Amino acid sequence: MDAYLERLIADEEARLLGLSGELAPLVSQLRSAVGCGKRLRATFLYWGWRAAGQPDCEDVLQAAAAMELVHAAAVTHDDIIDNSRTRHGRPTAHVAFASSGAPAPSRAPADWDASSQGPGSPHGRPAALAMLLGDLLMGYAGHVFTTCGLPGAYLARTVPLWSELLRETVAGEFLEVLRTGSTARCVAESLEVARYKTAKYTVERPLHLGATLGGAREDVLRAFTAYGLALGEAFQLRDDVLGTFGDPALTGKSVLDDVRGAKPTALLAIATARALGPDKRLLDKLVGDPDLDEAGGERLREVMERCGARQEIEAMITDRIAAARAALDLAPMPPTARGALDDLAGTATDRAL
Amino acid sequence: MDAYLERLIADEEARLLGLSGELAPLVSQLRSAVGCGKRLRATFLYWGWRAAGQPDCEDVLQAAAAMELVHAAAVTHDDIIDNSRTRHGRPTAHVAFASSGAPAPSRAPADWDASSQGPGSPHGRPAALAMLLGDLLMGYAGHVFTTCGLPGAYLARTVPLWSELLRETVAGEFLEVLRTGSTARCVAESLEVARYKTAKYTVERPLHLGATLGGAREDVLRAFTAYGLALGEAFQLRDDVLGTFGDPALTGKSVLDDVRGAKPTALLAIATARALGPDKRLLDKLVGDPDLDEAGGERLREVMERCGARQEIEAMITDRIAAARAALDLAPMPPTARGALDDLAGTATDRAL
Repeated sequence: MDAYLERLIADEEARLLGLSGELAPLVSQLRSAVGCGKRLRATFLYWGWRAAGQPDCEDVLQAAAAMELVHAAAVTHDDIIDNSRTRHGRPTAHVAFASSGAPAPSRAPADWDASSQGPGSPHGRPAALAMLLGDLLMGYAGHVFTTCGLPGAYLARTVPLWSELLRETVAGEFLEVLRTGSTARCVAESLEVARYKTAKYTVERPLHLGATLGGAREDVLRAFTAYGLALGEAFQLRDDVLGTFGDPALTGKSVLDDVRGAKPTALLAIATARALGPDKRLLDKLVGDPDLDEAGGERLREVMERCGARQEIEAMITDRIAAARAALDLAPMPPTARGALDDLAGTATDRAL
Repeated sequence: MDAYLERLIADEEARLLGLSGELAPLVSQLRSAVGCGKRLRATFLYWGWRAAGQPDCEDVLQAAAAMELVHAAAVTHDDIIDNSRTRHGRPTAHVAFASSGAPAPSRAPADWDASSQGPGSPHGRPAALAMLLGDLLMGYAGHVFTTCGLPGAYLARTVPLWSELLRETVAGEFLEVLRTGSTARCVAESLEVARYKTAKYTVERPLHLGATLGGAREDVLRAFTAYGLALGEAFQLRDDVLGTFGDPALTGKSVLDDVRGAKPTALLAIATARALGPDKRLLDKLVGDPDLDEAGGERLREVMERCGARQEIEAMITDRIAAARAALDLAPMPPTARGALDDLAGTATDRAL
């Protein structure tokens, strides 16, 4: 998949530089945006296709690569929204545009003030360039999917799915932004965001896209909904745990961003509900504090352990992985595909991911 | 077209509210984003189709409506980049989200600070919500186009065009952001931005989309390139003049934004090249000044008149309209289509627009 994406990026690079040599910073970030990742969405699309009884082939790899380009687009915009500074250990697009991706103009509008906000501010010019990168990636994704080489009749079947995938993903992000920073945290609302933003987008819809391309039966699609929603929630819950307890050297992400930003995660919701006395006051004080330091982060982690929030999340993850695996028995599919999806239920939510 | 778009928005509204009632602010801005406009891009797509000898029909109206949704998406992101506060006399999406579109969270991350920047700041939370609105509109545009009802073989012919349209538009915006704020202004660079950002996007590519859907001959597409690039530049030059000399009550836009932001317009480039002595010093001092007031704007307008920049732009517009009209003779097309496109060359660049 990496080699495949590299070839697609090289094609687009040539076309962009054919328009203007000044687009070099855009090209450089385009390459960076698709350079890393676990390729989960491509993998699910591929196994959805195989579960429909279709053979391994080059065309479906291109369709799967399109799904990764959609993800690169979504991630680029998401990183602007969250003002995330690193992803996979590398600077995010708006951070890269702020620091070196493009020469600063001699006289920029006052609200494009990168310098006073430090490199990677979500504000102004670097964010504008990164937003355009995301738009480009999304447009290119559509092109790559449409020209993957599979018959037009196969592609036509996926039109409603694409539209649902995009709507659900935007809806999930929108709800997350609305709820971020709120002190009234609720597990059900966190899981609703996770369902749209992660479960459907990362697992269910990619599986549906592959299966629909392959002409799968209705019961396979239903099994994938059950598998995808359970596994996707587990995946988001694991991400939340890693976002607070993970090793930044392995995850490539800060362990303070979620708490600093008071993200509506289930982990924070459960901790808020369970913590008592001084622990509760500490949570109220530190969650959402933009200046939270590593020592404060460590104290919050202790509270989350002490009140049992982390353990409860681990139990929820285990339950959901089991439910996802059981859902694979709801419909007939070739043993290779079933085996791969069973394995993915474990590895996609791996503790050290 | 307005009624048609209204129906499409009502459909999408129902689907979004089906996901969550909390998406009401998104729905409201979705409606607002497509509520107004000259529908130029839909009109060009329609007449491209008719120029190919195809009849008036419902399906092509839906394809044309998709082009307007693409435009609404582009405009939503463009308004964030420019921090434009009004469009067609109404608040832009990020301004609306800042002031009333969505309740503020009780404890937002520090860099989502809408209040300290005033409503409509391009920063943080309102901009994040508006960015998501743009993403939603773009996704919906793809759905509307793909399901317009025209034969799959017709739609398949337009795939490379869509990809070029999106790439060129992003490239034009990217170059504009890179060049905005620079004191070294050059007419050729301004026109390059106008070519990608406006001429191809507003005129040439919509005509090509309609003509290609309709199966037009190669010489018709070539004539549309000549017509589109000339007319599109004229359109951007008119927009630049109106952006400085227009009546905000008619244009719905501020006459100070372009100069405050030091946008790379041909008008500013020519004025910079022509102005001498104290006029030149005034330009250097006031262009790019974020606090420029109406009195300063008036002095700048006087400089642009006195040095002949405005008159030179008017002459360039006249030349380009003539070139566009002449280009319609380069290929055979039905008289109705030719007549409509000839009329559009005049009205699309109308002084009072």
